[in-house]
Amino acid sequence: MSPASRLSIALIHYPVWNKNREVVATAVTNLDIHDIARSARTYGVARYYIVTPVVEQQKLVEKIRTHWLEGWGATYNPKRKAALELLQTEGSLDAALADIESRTGQRARVVVTGAAGRANSIGFAGLRELMAGDPQRHYLLLLGTGWGLTEEVFDRGDYLLEPISGGGDYNHLSVRSAAAIMLDRLFGK
Amino acid sequence: MSPASRLSIALIHYPVWNKNREVVATAVTNLDIHDIARSARTYGVARYYIVTPVVEQQKLVEKIRTHWLEGWGATYNPKRKAALELLQTEGSLDAALADIESRTGQRARVVVTGAAGRANSIGFAGLRELMAGDPQRHYLLLLGTGWGLTEEVFDRGDYLLEPISGGGDYNHLSVRSAAAIMLDRLFGK
Repeated sequence: MSPASRLSIALIHYPVWNKNREVVATAVTNLDIHDIARSARTYGVARYYIVTPVVEQQKLVEKIRTHWLEGWGATYNPKRKAALELLQTEGSLDAALADIESRTGQRARVVVTGAAGRANSIGFAGLRELMAGDPQRHYLLLLGTGWGLTEEVFDRGDYLLEPISGGGDYNHLSVRSAAAIMLDRLFGK
Repeated sequence: MSPASRLSIALIHYPVWNKNREVVATAVTNLDIHDIARSARTYGVARYYIVTPVVEQQKLVEKIRTHWLEGWGATYNPKRKAALELLQTEGSLDAALADIESRTGQRARVVVTGAAGRANSIGFAGLRELMAGDPQRHYLLLLGTGWGLTEEVFDRGDYLLEPISGGGDYNHLSVRSAAAIMLDRLFGK
């Protein structure tokens, strides 16, 4: 199995920080769904989870997914359909991990990401090597929304991925852009 | 001058193809403004032009820019301000080129991008080398909206940049994701 096909992505809407360092559930953003699904399909990622415990938000994601997979959107834009086939809603990180386990028979290794540098992080080259070195192992890459993943989520990581640097000290990429760059660094030519 | 500081980006809303291969002016998308400005700031790009001849659309972009630079947004989110300081609206590709010329005294080399492979394109490594080899030269990277840049725009290119490949045959990244990956490939570590 190719490395990308052994990696899934989870976009976490809870628990994350808000601007005032309070733990919140963020709202789902339509373009997060589309952009990250398209990037995931481009690089051959296994699955793209939208993680939110808010039932109304889960229903919204499901409505969008159904529109493009079965509704008018499926014939209007088949390329969008191909991307959104990767999409799945789950209520928690544990539920996403359980889904991967039911698909692969394996507990995925959790890779946490964030914009700030931290000790003991693994580089992109390091993660590439790790994935190439154990060709049966599955991984789940966690992306935060709002002002980032809480400590509780960081503590769940088997690996902490180094932040993306553009050379300067500005580290405020959108999560959509960060996801695209991460996948390109891990699986691009 | 660093390579990134000698590159500007232009997001072209006209002339581009629509789904039915007609030449149209696309509508400006709010997240195109924000995401690409944040990526541009991350990698140290000189300027980010939104190119549209539609006056109402120019006014809309200007309203968003002013909100984040001078309005309530400037104090609410200074990081967004730093990104949108790079933003500028122009009515045409020629107007963007004229603006660069007025800033640098130089006609920028035009780099056209697209999702389909074409003959005589330059690779990312090739463009990096080119930019490193002539440290005074300025460049303008053209990104299309809708279903891509028309032949008229492709004909204006001094260079045609190879499409981003994720290894498979799916090449439908959002322009926001593509811009992020391009900047990372050109200027990332």
